[in-house]
Amino acid sequence: MAKVTMALAQVNPLVGDIDANTRLVLEFARRAIDEHQAGLILFPELVLTGYPPEDLLLRPSLARRIDRALQALCEARLPIKLLVGYPRVKAGRVYNAAGLIDQGQLVAEYYKQCLPNYQVFDEKRYFEAGTQPCVIDLWGLPVAITVCEDIWQAGPMAQARDAGARLMLNINASPYHRGKTTERRALLKQRAVEGNMPILYVNQVGGQDELVFDGHSMAVDAGGKSLMQAPAFDAGLFTIELDLESGQLLPAQQTEDVCSLESVYRALVLGVRDYVTKNRFNGVVLGLSGGIDSALTLAIAVDALGADRVEAVMMPFRYTSQLSQDDASDQARRMGVKYHVVSIEPIYEAFMASLAPAFTGTQLDTTEENLQARCRGVILMAMSNKHGSLVLTTGNKSEMAVGYSTLYGDMAGGFDVLKDVPKTLVFELARHRNRVREVIPDSVITRPPSAELRPDQKDEDSLPAYPVLDDILERYVERDESAADIIAAGHAEADVRRVLRLVDINEYKRRQAPIGPRLTKRGFGRDRRYPITNGWSIGD
Amino acid sequence: MAKVTMALAQVNPLVGDIDANTRLVLEFARRAIDEHQAGLILFPELVLTGYPPEDLLLRPSLARRIDRALQALCEARLPIKLLVGYPRVKAGRVYNAAGLIDQGQLVAEYYKQCLPNYQVFDEKRYFEAGTQPCVIDLWGLPVAITVCEDIWQAGPMAQARDAGARLMLNINASPYHRGKTTERRALLKQRAVEGNMPILYVNQVGGQDELVFDGHSMAVDAGGKSLMQAPAFDAGLFTIELDLESGQLLPAQQTEDVCSLESVYRALVLGVRDYVTKNRFNGVVLGLSGGIDSALTLAIAVDALGADRVEAVMMPFRYTSQLSQDDASDQARRMGVKYHVVSIEPIYEAFMASLAPAFTGTQLDTTEENLQARCRGVILMAMSNKHGSLVLTTGNKSEMAVGYSTLYGDMAGGFDVLKDVPKTLVFELARHRNRVREVIPDSVITRPPSAELRPDQKDEDSLPAYPVLDDILERYVERDESAADIIAAGHAEADVRRVLRLVDINEYKRRQAPIGPRLTKRGFGRDRRYPITNGWSIGD
Repeated sequence: MAKVTMALAQVNPLVGDIDANTRLVLEFARRAIDEHQAGLILFPELVLTGYPPEDLLLRPSLARRIDRALQALCEARLPIKLLVGYPRVKAGRVYNAAGLIDQGQLVAEYYKQCLPNYQVFDEKRYFEAGTQPCVIDLWGLPVAITVCEDIWQAGPMAQARDAGARLMLNINASPYHRGKTTERRALLKQRAVEGNMPILYVNQVGGQDELVFDGHSMAVDAGGKSLMQAPAFDAGLFTIELDLESGQLLPAQQTEDVCSLESVYRALVLGVRDYVTKNRFNGVVLGLSGGIDSALTLAIAVDALGADRVEAVMMPFRYTSQLSQDDASDQARRMGVKYHVVSIEPIYEAFMASLAPAFTGTQLDTTEENLQARCRGVILMAMSNKHGSLVLTTGNKSEMAVGYSTLYGDMAGGFDVLKDVPKTLVFELARHRNRVREVIPDSVITRPPSAELRPDQKDEDSLPAYPVLDDILERYVERDESAADIIAAGHAEADVRRVLRLVDINEYKRRQAPIGPRLTKRGFGRDRRYPITNGWSIGD
Repeated sequence: MAKVTMALAQVNPLVGDIDANTRLVLEFARRAIDEHQAGLILFPELVLTGYPPEDLLLRPSLARRIDRALQALCEARLPIKLLVGYPRVKAGRVYNAAGLIDQGQLVAEYYKQCLPNYQVFDEKRYFEAGTQPCVIDLWGLPVAITVCEDIWQAGPMAQARDAGARLMLNINASPYHRGKTTERRALLKQRAVEGNMPILYVNQVGGQDELVFDGHSMAVDAGGKSLMQAPAFDAGLFTIELDLESGQLLPAQQTEDVCSLESVYRALVLGVRDYVTKNRFNGVVLGLSGGIDSALTLAIAVDALGADRVEAVMMPFRYTSQLSQDDASDQARRMGVKYHVVSIEPIYEAFMASLAPAFTGTQLDTTEENLQARCRGVILMAMSNKHGSLVLTTGNKSEMAVGYSTLYGDMAGGFDVLKDVPKTLVFELARHRNRVREVIPDSVITRPPSAELRPDQKDEDSLPAYPVLDDILERYVERDESAADIIAAGHAEADVRRVLRLVDINEYKRRQAPIGPRLTKRGFGRDRRYPITNGWSIGD
């Protein structure tokens, strides 16, 4: 046999459901045999638990459950070698393991050496680091096994090379963020060259709470040149041939990259679809205000779930313009979703009448604005409760950053689709989506953004223009620049100080915000852990 | 000089406010000189940033700010040795450092070797571990410096002993949980005996978001016998004398322990006081239902802030009993707080009228119950917005565990005082507080708990009796027991499966819950990181 087919299982496991994930592994392995006569199939990191399992790793029955799953994989005695990831409990410690199953036996086991404990990752909370490389003989070829972060550092490849490996198998659960494909490619190239060996890289796909895994499995040759690339954001089984004489991988399917906007859009669609379906909601409901955030959220929801699983509710008040009402109903019609109009006027009046004794002698302020938002939140939640649907919230990253949103009002809901999408990107994505088919009325995109909580209110009355705001926010939140750095980059000091202060004092809102898909190198979730009680001054 | 006075500064820093914390260090150091002629003063771990600073440790200006603070401490040239904790940035890495300042110079610096990365701790996210002991000569005596977790493991004491140390200074930011004093004492005893040297243990005091630091600084002799103990939950400056000839610490102030209930009560009071004052709220407002949770929360709030900073609101509906209304007004009168009655009847009716078209053909269900809770949440938030006060929520740990609470309803607010207090402990605390003065009407304690969201509703209609529920919850949540373990302990299988399932499926609610003070070994906060999307079956 001069050539062997290697299969990459770019699967979408359900975190915690070890039984279902084990069946998924068997199903893909059988397909790799039946459809491709493959000799080896690679599954992602921790495929048996899904990634990240978080504190499920602390459950006492974990070891038993994993043992049972591995036993089931062995007992299937499939005529293919299986490389699977799972947590291995050993002498009271847990390792992030990759095991090779061949002819009904676990023939090799590797423990991840580099444990990420930054950004969204907490692996040192759970895992003990391995200390040994694992190089095994496959059809006469010495092959190294590594797990995810191991390839982001230089050590494990150097070990593999020193141990005589001629091919690296790297199994991953690597979450998406904008631009990550480019980073990964450069990295694989560098490591392949360092080790002078080809690399097979398989990655999980799917949404898991705030993370979106993009798949995008790939292979590079010993010079780092791309030999194959699987699509992003879709599960699937992909193959590449290994020439046993030369030890080289042969060129295979090359899925073309999509543009950055399309990539973000697909990440959002996948994030919504998986959150809704994995949590078994009947569908979603959202407030449609006539503004661009809810318009884009609706388009994503329909693309993720189909129009029949999406309901939109316009909740007008005295400050809601006719244009907003027309645009909302127009968009609902274009997208074919069920559409309700529920005025909040009598509800607001009932609250104000009841609060009148407590509010005697006070002035109108943001209290009344928040009250409008909260009337709407309660209506959406009531519809969600009654119909078993999930409320999607529509707050974008710029709003989340500066607290331009109402807790228990427009923040009421289970999944915030645009949570990591800055407002300027909301506009780009809306235009991008409309290029396929114009589902968002043009006036929604071109009118100046307004919360419509006061007469003639515009967002830019209380915030810097969005391009300015978003640049300041990206520098502060994603790049950790200081106030001095941001001012030096050309922003007005008053803007910088105001925006940074707003970010700092609104941590309490974000702490109670719904989760949403992470798209950048720093989202407002597990990624950014700030104290609420916080005396840090903006200073320098 | 045969004896030296050592001062323990049990201080309450504000996280992030390096300038203010530096002033606090100088103030306590001057007091130690003026009032006690002390030769050395010990401050807690990371006193310059407060603990835990979380992602503030990633800010680029951290190094500059800490350098300035250390410079200010040196330049003060106080006639006392200062041992302070701070993050040290060095070659791009951050260490959890303890530095000794003497005569205007930083004369020694130790880097914490054991970095906790479990429970609520994420130190491996931020810090590089030190590798070296630090033993310095103080008045001819070799003294070891260690930081917090270093004393929870055997290594650093063994190092200190091997390096010839005869006294250990251990600076801490050790959060409270029930029973921790006993653990700490046993630990200090064990280490002192292992190292055959006395230990001076200083701890931070104060509330910081979900953590409460109890102070309780202490000293033990080389046999582990207690020589001094500072009070819990109060800041203060405490002293002990060191005999330079024998190297022994001399017996000093012994604050007696309080009982476990009093200790929990004080932790709650401190948690509320510090959250409110450090975040600069004018006061607090809470819904008073006539039930025991809000009754106890009110008592704690008044004890923390004084009656004039606390407002209570009774929000009756058709299912609210006369007893509840009488008990609520009675309690408000006894505690001397401002009391409002705001009926939610007309607001509820307004919502139902507006929702009628969307609800055509549906039955009454929990939607209408949630709606009542949400009307109340919106009223409290409006009062909070108008008056600059914080809404305290009143959900206990048993409710948080099984999701017996309404998001954006009774969960609407900034701080959940009883979040880590199981219902059975709520009863005990209420009785305990009443022993000082009966502020909670007896009928509030003796009547069967009810949410009063349906006619004649009792909590125990839908949940196991609270003693049963709380035992199952403690085993599952705090002790990580499996379903099989809990059934084996004598609980009915149906109860166990129902309760565990409720805990698992309600993660989404807890994720949006307000923070609250942690009192147990596992609270629902940073301590317990479960996925929302989760296919883990209860199984075994």
